[in-house]
Amino acid sequence: MSDLPSVSERRQTLLQPSATPLVVIMGLGFVGLAMATVVAQAHNPAGEPTYRVVGLDVPSQQGRLDQINQGVLPFATEDASFAPALAQVVSQQRNLLALADPAILAYADIIVLDINLDIHKHPGQTPPYTLIDGPFHNALATLGQLMRPEALLLVETTVPPGFCQHIIAPALAQAFAARGLNQAPLIAHAYERVMPGRDYLRSIREYFRTFSGLSPAAAERAQIFLNSVVDTSKAPLRQEAHPNASELAKIMENAYRSVNIALLHEWCLLAEKMGVNLFSVVEGIRVRKTHQNIMNPGFGVGGYCLTKDALLAQWSADHLFAAEHGLPLSLQAIAINDQMPLHTVTRIQTERNLQGAHIALLGVSYREDVGDTRYSPSETFCRAALNAGAHIHVHDPYLDHWPELPELPWLPELAALSAADIVVLATRHQAYRSQDWCVYARPGQLWVDANNLLSDSAIIALLQQGCDVIGIGKGHISTLKEALP
Amino acid sequence: MSDLPSVSERRQTLLQPSATPLVVIMGLGFVGLAMATVVAQAHNPAGEPTYRVVGLDVPSQQGRLDQINQGVLPFATEDASFAPALAQVVSQQRNLLALADPAILAYADIIVLDINLDIHKHPGQTPPYTLIDGPFHNALATLGQLMRPEALLLVETTVPPGFCQHIIAPALAQAFAARGLNQAPLIAHAYERVMPGRDYLRSIREYFRTFSGLSPAAAERAQIFLNSVVDTSKAPLRQEAHPNASELAKIMENAYRSVNIALLHEWCLLAEKMGVNLFSVVEGIRVRKTHQNIMNPGFGVGGYCLTKDALLAQWSADHLFAAEHGLPLSLQAIAINDQMPLHTVTRIQTERNLQGAHIALLGVSYREDVGDTRYSPSETFCRAALNAGAHIHVHDPYLDHWPELPELPWLPELAALSAADIVVLATRHQAYRSQDWCVYARPGQLWVDANNLLSDSAIIALLQQGCDVIGIGKGHISTLKEALP
Repeated sequence: MSDLPSVSERRQTLLQPSATPLVVIMGLGFVGLAMATVVAQAHNPAGEPTYRVVGLDVPSQQGRLDQINQGVLPFATEDASFAPALAQVVSQQRNLLALADPAILAYADIIVLDINLDIHKHPGQTPPYTLIDGPFHNALATLGQLMRPEALLLVETTVPPGFCQHIIAPALAQAFAARGLNQAPLIAHAYERVMPGRDYLRSIREYFRTFSGLSPAAAERAQIFLNSVVDTSKAPLRQEAHPNASELAKIMENAYRSVNIALLHEWCLLAEKMGVNLFSVVEGIRVRKTHQNIMNPGFGVGGYCLTKDALLAQWSADHLFAAEHGLPLSLQAIAINDQMPLHTVTRIQTERNLQGAHIALLGVSYREDVGDTRYSPSETFCRAALNAGAHIHVHDPYLDHWPELPELPWLPELAALSAADIVVLATRHQAYRSQDWCVYARPGQLWVDANNLLSDSAIIALLQQGCDVIGIGKGHISTLKEALP
Repeated sequence: MSDLPSVSERRQTLLQPSATPLVVIMGLGFVGLAMATVVAQAHNPAGEPTYRVVGLDVPSQQGRLDQINQGVLPFATEDASFAPALAQVVSQQRNLLALADPAILAYADIIVLDINLDIHKHPGQTPPYTLIDGPFHNALATLGQLMRPEALLLVETTVPPGFCQHIIAPALAQAFAARGLNQAPLIAHAYERVMPGRDYLRSIREYFRTFSGLSPAAAERAQIFLNSVVDTSKAPLRQEAHPNASELAKIMENAYRSVNIALLHEWCLLAEKMGVNLFSVVEGIRVRKTHQNIMNPGFGVGGYCLTKDALLAQWSADHLFAAEHGLPLSLQAIAINDQMPLHTVTRIQTERNLQGAHIALLGVSYREDVGDTRYSPSETFCRAALNAGAHIHVHDPYLDHWPELPELPWLPELAALSAADIVVLATRHQAYRSQDWCVYARPGQLWVDANNLLSDSAIIALLQQGCDVIGIGKGHISTLKEALP
């Protein structure tokens, strides 16, 4: 990679007059960098790149930007295709560059906005959340000063519904007017369905997108752009009539998921009291086509979207539309899911005193078979168990450090499990599901199957070895115990 | 049918010593009579009936029983196969008889319990519901006195989870002991998924059942019985480990449905404020396999199950399992759905004063293409509109009277619609969906599309005729109005 020209040389080359449109992706986070790579990969039948691409982020991210400009992925991923794809567009094709200087916006034909809008939750307080929109408003201010009025702004950020019409458009229109421009800004909205894991990049390029424009012209520009970067033969585009609709769709899609997990969580507590194996019940219900999407209960809900998206819509209900009904069901679902890791703590406490107990927590990622710790239920669990006086060692086959809880020691190897008083199986990683845990079990240990990782025969084997076992949603374990010889 | 012997003669014939087991179905309601018919239809390869069948109900139902014993279905149904099937088993095959005398229970080999357990709701009060279990307890007392200890009791009633183990088994065991019997009663639980409409009988015979037994012997007997009446080649049986699990499954299945409708109802209110067509949004979300079961918003939720089942489980949480968490999400869903017809009232009131207004309500059934008024959202709507001073005429192609609101006048014909100030399209009957409403529309009328019955072009046609139109979940109608010339 040492034969690459310097960034400023590459910048100069990229900005030479060209018929190839320049796309700037603002925000090189989980979606932005994947999007930048996919846009840079787009090409015509002759193999020539469709776009010049600049990824723009803030100066505090300079370390990441340097890595990207060396063709190196700045984070770990299970998608083996991502690093080579990035290296190819940066180092070979050289149509992707990462910059921290917003001046580039003045040259952009298309600007894709991928800057996070976060929510801080304040459970039990009023209001129960704060919208962290500072970085987003900074980006809007910069855009207002610099973007060409002919450029298309495509908003991909998950925003509170109504944001394009009521926040972004007025802000840009006002900035344009201050610059003496009388054009209306061209604003469109589209949402991706990116998924961490092995198909990370493919989930950007080959999965359904919904889009919309604030004006017919903006919608048309967005459609042409998305058709050129998304494989719409596999995943046809869907157009909604207005950004309000596509913004709402994105969030309701995630609320649907979150509410359906919360439903199983609340029934999980009852099933445990009743001695019922809720996983078997769910399997039986899924025979109905109309009920195939019913979820399983588990350790909790994590990740960036399901844990907060409905709150963005509640913000819209409160601040943009005076919709006094709000979204009580969707909000209650988030609260139930947030509480769920504490249910595992409570279950453990009915069996063991946590003061001084040694816990081994297996699974730090919020989701199976990825190394992604964002809002992981494991964090909620660990903070509560630490408060109760437990010592915790953690383990995850996809990770070797935990940004949110860097102080927790890691298990050197699974063999060290035998030193633990309590083993919590938290994440449904494939490696954990195929593991024979008996080889590490020691009589007197409490094993906690918090996410349906153990078959009944595996539970019986642990019981026969003199361990105790409890399971989330597995009330039937008491029956398994009674049936032991 | 006049050649049929008298009921007492038929009773005597049916009770002659026979190798053919006698099945008594207790409760000849919506499920019981269909079940009795299907059980009477069961036969061996030679065409000989598998069972002698008695349908048992209380003396106050004598009128219904007389009709059944003449081979006549005592209620209307859209299932054209039901009346001939009943006539065949009663009049030709003569292995089904309806009786009010519980003495028959002493002869039964299998007793199927189909007696309703109802809930009365008291919104805003504590406790928010009352379990109406009097008829059920009466039946248990009769069973305890009369049933043979070798007989299988198969509970099909939707009961609060835990009922077989904690209520039915102790009641029968105590009664058996009082009779000097020391056998444990044979108790099993199974649930059907009956559906009103054209496939009513088929939904009993050819759809998946889940079953369980309180003892292995009871489970085995239930399995043999269900295999002999249900077409398990099309719908394999599923066994749960314990009645607690199958009782819970039945109710959670309905809570899943009810919560998912409530989710759309709460987002519906926001979508309307935002000018969004929520039906289009839902269509776009359904492209994801994981989201195919997302529901549509609508006029409300009716019927016997979705409107109350989660409350039965809340009763169990409160009275049998001390599960203090309860089911807040599932209960909130029922409350949201119960309120939904009032949202249509509110929407109308933003456009019209209801005092003295003439409303035509199209659709009294709670569900499309059936004549079933149980807990119909139309009832909630009408009571509120009457309270607000409206005059209401009703219409339904599947009904000619409304048991819950018999005082409301019926529209003589659709042509009479032109006399109404407000037309509410409430039920998604096929006849209403294919109707050209413009022929009945009069300028100045308010048309309310409360259940997605009108296409956008139909809405535009009504607007062009000088009507006003509002729609539940159809915030985009304001845009359609603005686009009119």
